[in-house]
Amino acid sequence: MSVENLLSLPTVRLNEEDHTLSILDQTQLPSKTVYLRLSETEEMYEAIARLKVRGAPAIGVAAAYSLYLSVRPYAHYSFEEFSALFEEKRRYLDSARPTAVNLSWALNRMRACLMQHRHLPVTEIIICLKNEADSIKEEDTVMCRSIGQHGVKLLKPNWGILTHCNAGHLATSCFGTALAPVYTGMEQGMQFHLYADETRPLLQGARLTAFELQKAGADVTLLCDNMAASLMAKGRINAVLVGCDRVAANGDTANKIGTSGVAILAKYYHIPFYVCAPSSTIDLNCCTGKEIVIEERNPDEVTEMWYNERMAPPHIKVYNPAFDVTDFSLITAFITEKGIVYPPFKENFKKLFS
Amino acid sequence: MSVENLLSLPTVRLNEEDHTLSILDQTQLPSKTVYLRLSETEEMYEAIARLKVRGAPAIGVAAAYSLYLSVRPYAHYSFEEFSALFEEKRRYLDSARPTAVNLSWALNRMRACLMQHRHLPVTEIIICLKNEADSIKEEDTVMCRSIGQHGVKLLKPNWGILTHCNAGHLATSCFGTALAPVYTGMEQGMQFHLYADETRPLLQGARLTAFELQKAGADVTLLCDNMAASLMAKGRINAVLVGCDRVAANGDTANKIGTSGVAILAKYYHIPFYVCAPSSTIDLNCCTGKEIVIEERNPDEVTEMWYNERMAPPHIKVYNPAFDVTDFSLITAFITEKGIVYPPFKENFKKLFS
Repeated sequence: MSVENLLSLPTVRLNEEDHTLSILDQTQLPSKTVYLRLSETEEMYEAIARLKVRGAPAIGVAAAYSLYLSVRPYAHYSFEEFSALFEEKRRYLDSARPTAVNLSWALNRMRACLMQHRHLPVTEIIICLKNEADSIKEEDTVMCRSIGQHGVKLLKPNWGILTHCNAGHLATSCFGTALAPVYTGMEQGMQFHLYADETRPLLQGARLTAFELQKAGADVTLLCDNMAASLMAKGRINAVLVGCDRVAANGDTANKIGTSGVAILAKYYHIPFYVCAPSSTIDLNCCTGKEIVIEERNPDEVTEMWYNERMAPPHIKVYNPAFDVTDFSLITAFITEKGIVYPPFKENFKKLFS
Repeated sequence: MSVENLLSLPTVRLNEEDHTLSILDQTQLPSKTVYLRLSETEEMYEAIARLKVRGAPAIGVAAAYSLYLSVRPYAHYSFEEFSALFEEKRRYLDSARPTAVNLSWALNRMRACLMQHRHLPVTEIIICLKNEADSIKEEDTVMCRSIGQHGVKLLKPNWGILTHCNAGHLATSCFGTALAPVYTGMEQGMQFHLYADETRPLLQGARLTAFELQKAGADVTLLCDNMAASLMAKGRINAVLVGCDRVAANGDTANKIGTSGVAILAKYYHIPFYVCAPSSTIDLNCCTGKEIVIEERNPDEVTEMWYNERMAPPHIKVYNPAFDVTDFSLITAFITEKGIVYPPFKENFKKLFS
């Protein structure tokens, strides 16, 4: 088994022959590797909302293709009709997940593409939209590889590396964000000891991160989220690598629930905590983490999902936020496709985009 | 619903009419409230090893009764035969859980009782052993009530209180250790907002703590372990109350895996972190947490237990320690049945026992 195995496992693929979108259904992993073939906007919305496709970059790619496929049959519309329909579909898809900035980002790019080519016939606009979605996917691949190349410089062979949730290959078009430095190191012959938080409630770590690291031939150990402090206390973790869903201008970072706790533990144990962030995830219009809307999800995810029987008493109140915000002061550096960003983040993000 | 409801839910009960032990099977909660009626030593060993009875004080009570019931049929033995059999059963029961100091503590008390009454006929020794087990149970009840009365002085009405695992009524003969201050407050008319970590892998928080707090009429909210930092960041937690399995002479505390992480988070957010500890749990012969043996449990608990299907890939390595050690520097105070112990713990524990 080796890193190349991942290339035969695309997360999102446009099927040009029948104008459908193939999505690796991540809710069925690791027991079944099933590709869903989607053609209706509602199906694509559902795939995003129900985490069949997940991970900020993969959501962006899936959303762009979904929007393209949703408007593709309307080549006979006038531009006014077409752009009204486009807006309707765009808004609908945009509402599938409130926190993932890449969703809006990709859909807004598609809108910009529409507006840029408004002088063309609708049939040609549709081709431009398809090309734009292709570009988003290709840029994602290049972005992940760049994050890997920058990030690997921070790692040393045989390090113990903890990750939370899944910001790996399955979250992107290729190699992932948080795991890209690991895969890049493995391509260069380095070995690491990976530790995957299982990541309750939806167990993305157990189901996805453990799965893809194992596929890639990595030495990976699974743990429950509450075991990370114990591993750190034993000196088995040399670095934490996580992805992110949205980064505020000051460096406050929204990521999968539990990330901020891991960051606090890493700080306590003097372990570097790296956030792997495509620059599209950094939102300079959002001043601090306080402005980030945190999605609250269904209590059933905590009390019964995945189980033979309900594992909590009936009618119990549940706290189930999808994300938390890690304070910028807990983050050692951001690894972006444009390079590594150290504090002060506010100033250095501005330089990154200048 | 009120606190009195708990009194009709004993965790361990000796049935004098047929010389059996009734144990509330906590692996079947919260969906089924089933009492197991045990008569064989192997069944009692299994009940302890498989967490059907769990929680340090309840294990001590169950072990004492188990040892009594195991030797009770041998009244016709000579003292030498009887004490050899006693030792064999004692060692066997003592091996059921390596970390719980109360198990050894209760069994050693039973042995001391045996030795103290060695001059009596074996039939009378057996009566003494039964009385000793009764005393252990009664003292546990008194101990929990005392912890409650000392601990409640540290709490204020309407506080948000986080607890990890189950150190409640179901872990003891009555009211628990960590939850005793809460129940005592509720008896006095105080209201709290309880937050229960689900406590992976065996979900004692979801299954047991949420269940018993709900039975007692408390306002309780369930969360996944990795959500505690998010709650604390929102200012919703005013104090953390946990139990413990073993406390070293310097205050280092072994408790359910995840406790040390919660303590680090509490420190970061300046939230008081209280360990509710029967003085029998404080082991002055154990200098620091480094000497505490941590039980490693079956990987299946993480990868498949409770699930319809396996939730992690086959052959995945798993890190699954049952306990972790919370550094004494993270603990605000110990709440014992003899009073509250503040730092420096080493000196103040000695005073507690003098």
